[in-house]
Amino acid sequence: MEASTLIKNARILPMTEETWFDEGYILIKGNRILEVGEGEYQGMASFDKVMDASGKVVMPGLINTHGHAAMVLLRGYADDLPLMEWLQTKCWPIEDKMTEEDIYWGTKLAILEMLKSGTTTFTDMYFEMDGVARAVEESGIRAVLSRGMIGFPPKAEQALTQSREFARKWHRAADGRITVLLGPHAPYTCPPDYLKQVVSLSEELDLPIQIHLSETAGEVEQSIKDHGVSPIKLMEQVGLFNRPTLAAHCVHVSDEDIEIMSKYNVHVAHNPDSNLKLGSGVAPLLKMLEKGLTVGLGTDGAASNNNLDMFEEMRHAAMIHKGVNLDPIAVNAYKALEMATTDGAKTLFLEEKLGTLQPGALADLIFLDYNRPYYHPRHNLIAHLVYAGQSGDVTDVMIDGEMIVENRRVLTMDEERIYEEAANTCNRLFA
Amino acid sequence: MEASTLIKNARILPMTEETWFDEGYILIKGNRILEVGEGEYQGMASFDKVMDASGKVVMPGLINTHGHAAMVLLRGYADDLPLMEWLQTKCWPIEDKMTEEDIYWGTKLAILEMLKSGTTTFTDMYFEMDGVARAVEESGIRAVLSRGMIGFPPKAEQALTQSREFARKWHRAADGRITVLLGPHAPYTCPPDYLKQVVSLSEELDLPIQIHLSETAGEVEQSIKDHGVSPIKLMEQVGLFNRPTLAAHCVHVSDEDIEIMSKYNVHVAHNPDSNLKLGSGVAPLLKMLEKGLTVGLGTDGAASNNNLDMFEEMRHAAMIHKGVNLDPIAVNAYKALEMATTDGAKTLFLEEKLGTLQPGALADLIFLDYNRPYYHPRHNLIAHLVYAGQSGDVTDVMIDGEMIVENRRVLTMDEERIYEEAANTCNRLFA
Repeated sequence: MEASTLIKNARILPMTEETWFDEGYILIKGNRILEVGEGEYQGMASFDKVMDASGKVVMPGLINTHGHAAMVLLRGYADDLPLMEWLQTKCWPIEDKMTEEDIYWGTKLAILEMLKSGTTTFTDMYFEMDGVARAVEESGIRAVLSRGMIGFPPKAEQALTQSREFARKWHRAADGRITVLLGPHAPYTCPPDYLKQVVSLSEELDLPIQIHLSETAGEVEQSIKDHGVSPIKLMEQVGLFNRPTLAAHCVHVSDEDIEIMSKYNVHVAHNPDSNLKLGSGVAPLLKMLEKGLTVGLGTDGAASNNNLDMFEEMRHAAMIHKGVNLDPIAVNAYKALEMATTDGAKTLFLEEKLGTLQPGALADLIFLDYNRPYYHPRHNLIAHLVYAGQSGDVTDVMIDGEMIVENRRVLTMDEERIYEEAANTCNRLFA
Repeated sequence: MEASTLIKNARILPMTEETWFDEGYILIKGNRILEVGEGEYQGMASFDKVMDASGKVVMPGLINTHGHAAMVLLRGYADDLPLMEWLQTKCWPIEDKMTEEDIYWGTKLAILEMLKSGTTTFTDMYFEMDGVARAVEESGIRAVLSRGMIGFPPKAEQALTQSREFARKWHRAADGRITVLLGPHAPYTCPPDYLKQVVSLSEELDLPIQIHLSETAGEVEQSIKDHGVSPIKLMEQVGLFNRPTLAAHCVHVSDEDIEIMSKYNVHVAHNPDSNLKLGSGVAPLLKMLEKGLTVGLGTDGAASNNNLDMFEEMRHAAMIHKGVNLDPIAVNAYKALEMATTDGAKTLFLEEKLGTLQPGALADLIFLDYNRPYYHPRHNLIAHLVYAGQSGDVTDVMIDGEMIVENRRVLTMDEERIYEEAANTCNRLFA
């Protein structure tokens, strides 16, 4: 018999249409939402648990469509540096030393941060991925995981083999909370022939692909020099887009690139903060949305952000494109919320109802303290959440029907232990 | 005899140089800092109060150099609209109805938000300013206030008279926490002859001037059409820049404009969020800094932000210019902190040591909970505060030597009453 919960007295933002209930209830049975309604629950059912959400907003958990969780270990280690110097002299030498255990503890720290800030699903592309999957399994979060693949010797073949093994071991594991994508890193680290092997593996395993595309202007220039075409066009040529694809960044994409992406229904992970902080640029989000592309939001790794805060990504997605395009009506608040919830779920090839509160949807939801000065007066819940709110307002988190965070405490994790292990790991890595 | 306080076991960011103490102490006597040191206090003095700041960062309070506090009453009332429609059909009709009492309660709500988010000094240009000054006096915050002046009939003369009266009544009032500037609204609302009268009044009262300049491209175009020159050049011509001037926005300023601003040492309030949200654009901050201009950060009114969160302004000032200029080393984290503290104080013509923790400085300081996931690992306090932190981490606030916020509770204000009065005010204004 599955446990049932009634959440009552909640302000509810269901993300099924652009409105909210000032007072409503949600019924949950097992890991699914059974019913969402306005006012008081009038039905006859009894419940294993009743939660009073007075003074709180309940909304779908946030979905982070791009990142490298364990890079929290590099947070603040090297900022305000040119990109290549940052990567080559700072990030890579440290990453080379990371063991599965380091990545396990780094990912735990990242998950702790994500849970406390209202993220219920995250995306990861990294290495030693068993460490990541273990952290996901234990913590109760939902995740879409890829073993990152570099298509150069000596580890190119191993990356394909390990990706296959990882998918067989972890796809749909942890009660279905984990799904796996294949993760070729980027066109500049995976030659065309290698990408063709990835496409074959994707067909064999029936799994979509995630890849970094056109993040920097330099990368596009190099592609044109090496291959005569843009990274997007090159991906069309190697057949990658014949497979369901999630493309991260897409900052430097031309109108023609966007046409190609639209033709193949390429999904996009838009990472406003990382693109700003690394000086990569501002993605042409308005054009991508106009063409009907499915776009989610991502934080990227914390080394280039420097947090994993989806409230900030929402706010920035809604604000930056207004400023850069001199257009105050570009990307409204509700669209930013959609990108962080419903559109995020679609971006990750997850089932359609994830990212909403409606009957049949997976019970991934977050509670926010709405009793903050910046949520007054009560003109507009949607605008308040996007333009005025912050992740620190999240008090409780339910994932897959289980309470994972209660009153800001993560029930599945030992916070002090994680800080200690992360510090120990860094003491060794940065020695 | 003035009360003395010892703050011990604090991580201290003094903002006197680009470094911090992992453990240190601060002595305060009356409203001034007496001593700041690393490690434990070894002196012989005894104290009226000892505060243990274990696990916290102590840094100077943040300084908001531009805003319209009572506009919090319009927060979320009308977003995602074209600028002129927003102003003419939404903001102005409501503002026309506001009484001094409405503005008093609106300002109280704004101050509540600012105190809780670590702002210890704010700047205001609005109307019915006695209501604002009363709210400042009662709350214990520091403020720089201007009666906004519109230079068109029927109230142009009254605005000058009321500005004089306001300055005589409130300049250096509230134990010196209030200072007054003259506030002609903008060149497009104050004709040249009127601005000359403001310059005379500024000389008469020996007070600086604050004004909105070159916020939108349209405004600059109109100035060139009407006067043959940019708003900046026009201000030079009318003699405004012969007086100490704080110019808010300066989004659309040419290289020549920046030369003029540099020549007259015009101070700038940079408002990254408001400029983005209203689609005004991105100010050429890098060029202004290169020319040595004194630049502070501001939120502008909450109707175009939609909060009064200086942590967000810092973060955005450090990130947006990297992205827009494709330059990852533009505006580093420490510069963003300076703009929000030391440079902010200079921008507002306040005494030199405000915005720092050092002997002789006014005791305006804030405490932050440093025990959050995004502050781990401990690589770099400065980067963490700017790129990863949030205003919700502020736990305690001291202003002018007095504890104003303790453990997130504002001691000088009745939070629930303010929410209630703000709601009542809105019910009437928006009826």
